[in-house]
Amino acid sequence: MDTIEAMLDTYPKDLGRVDRGMLVACIQACYECAQTCTACGDACLSEDMVAELTKCIRTNLDCADICATTGAVLSRHTGYDANVSRAVLMACATVCTACGDECERHASMHEHCRVCAESCRRCEQACRDLLGALG
Amino acid sequence: MDTIEAMLDTYPKDLGRVDRGMLVACIQACYECAQTCTACGDACLSEDMVAELTKCIRTNLDCADICATTGAVLSRHTGYDANVSRAVLMACATVCTACGDECERHASMHEHCRVCAESCRRCEQACRDLLGALG
Amino acid sequence: MDTIEAMLDTYPKDLGRVDRGMLVACIQACYECAQTCTACGDACLSEDMVAELTKCIRTNLDCADICATTGAVLSRHTGYDANVSRAVLMACATVCTACGDECERHASMHEHCRVCAESCRRCEQACRDLLGALG
Amino acid sequence: MDTIEAMLDTYPKDLGRVDRGMLVACIQACYECAQTCTACGDACLSEDMVAELTKCIRTNLDCADICATTGAVLSRHTGYDANVSRAVLMACATVCTACGDECERHASMHEHCRVCAESCRRCEQACRDLLGALG
Repeated sequence: MDTIEAMLDTYPKDLGRVDRGMLVACIQACYECAQTCTACGDACLSEDMVAELTKCIRTNLDCADICATTGAVLSRHTGYDANVSRAVLMACATVCTACGDECERHASMHEHCRVCAESCRRCEQACRDLLGALG
Repeated sequence: MDTIEAMLDTYPKDLGRVDRGMLVACIQACYECAQTCTACGDACLSEDMVAELTKCIRTNLDCADICATTGAVLSRHTGYDANVSRAVLMACATVCTACGDECERHASMHEHCRVCAESCRRCEQACRDLLGALG
Repeated sequence: MDTIEAMLDTYPKDLGRVDRGMLVACIQACYECAQTCTACGDACLSEDMVAELTKCIRTNLDCADICATTGAVLSRHTGYDANVSRAVLMACATVCTACGDECERHASMHEHCRVCAESCRRCEQACRDLLGALG
Repeated sequence: MDTIEAMLDTYPKDLGRVDRGMLVACIQACYECAQTCTACGDACLSEDMVAELTKCIRTNLDCADICATTGAVLSRHTGYDANVSRAVLMACATVCTACGDECERHASMHEHCRVCAESCRRCEQACRDLLGALG
């Protein structure tokens, strides 16, 4: 999604002292993780052993919702409020940890959980990096 | 939305020691605030003085997204994870405070901001009540 | 959600020749159905016979997403585009039919599916009423 | 987002006779367009001439919501319902046409509208291609 960087470059006002590279990486990770978790929840639903994957599906759904919202919040810069960015990044890091842990438990049996766990770890890290940079 | 309570009553497993009244009130407040903020952002966009309402519109959009996500997370009970609930409730309370403050600034001039500020305050309180009950 | 009507009343510009009662009813039905389907998908996930409810859960998720989006689109009036309203209302009526049918199949066994099927029927009807009124 | 293809490859059941390349391209275009429209609406909000961009902002918001929902629906394969896929793809193509047209009007003045118009055109085409392939 090269458009993330292009859109950031065309924002008409000052972006403040944000680390652009970290911001782009975090927006990208959030949208990717939203899609991966949506797909992983659905793949779990189609496994014969779905009854053992219900916690994984639920966590996938929460993670997809929170990542999508975080990606949208980070894509806005007008009237920036650091408190809101920080709170939503913390929620996103928290759910990515939970979903990464849960998917990792099934990663050796289900390839979709392995791919999804990696996506959650990347997103968690991108959120923590950006949180650190926001101060 | 009487269906919120009806759906909670028909959940097939144990809900744990959650305060059902507070949970129903919080889900209701989140969906209401998501709609109110969506409508307030659009109403601001149609004001002649839209140039003075850009921060309000942006905060409305963040608040709508986070409230919708929080309402969805709270509507799920399978494989409950207190850390995720707490983090999303804190993000929701934070953005409702920000949006309530911002709308209140315009409440005397714009009736939609007055209605929206009240919706944000109710949702912020419902989130804080539930956070307190979760411990 | 009395706030839906309050927000419509405070919209600063002309709403055009839309039937306000039908619009309020449809927005309300969309947000309600989004919540009900989210909760029903989760309740299905917690049933012992979850393996027989996977199509129901998937349809619940689609219906929740499309209803939430339709409720948001209908809450905006600035720069109204009848083609967009019509297309999203048709998608919403289609998924509400599918989800209502699917939930009805399990309504005698699962009370959450019965409540959800009714919510889907109401939303489908509200969308068709509004579509008819839009011309 | 290489993960879209990876997740499709790890789906445990038969995907039916869908064109995988077109499906991956459409999911990718939907998530990209959801982000681009979110960012473009916000960039418009920060332009000095925001009062002349209100219809563009509103269409951006509708397009972001519908693209995000379409991307999620297309990421699910369990209990596939062609009617739902078709209806949501038609809604997505419709709003991408509207948003592409609107952004194009401002493309010579605002670079974010130019990038966004291209993203809308790509997403519209990807939806129409997939619609054609679904039959």
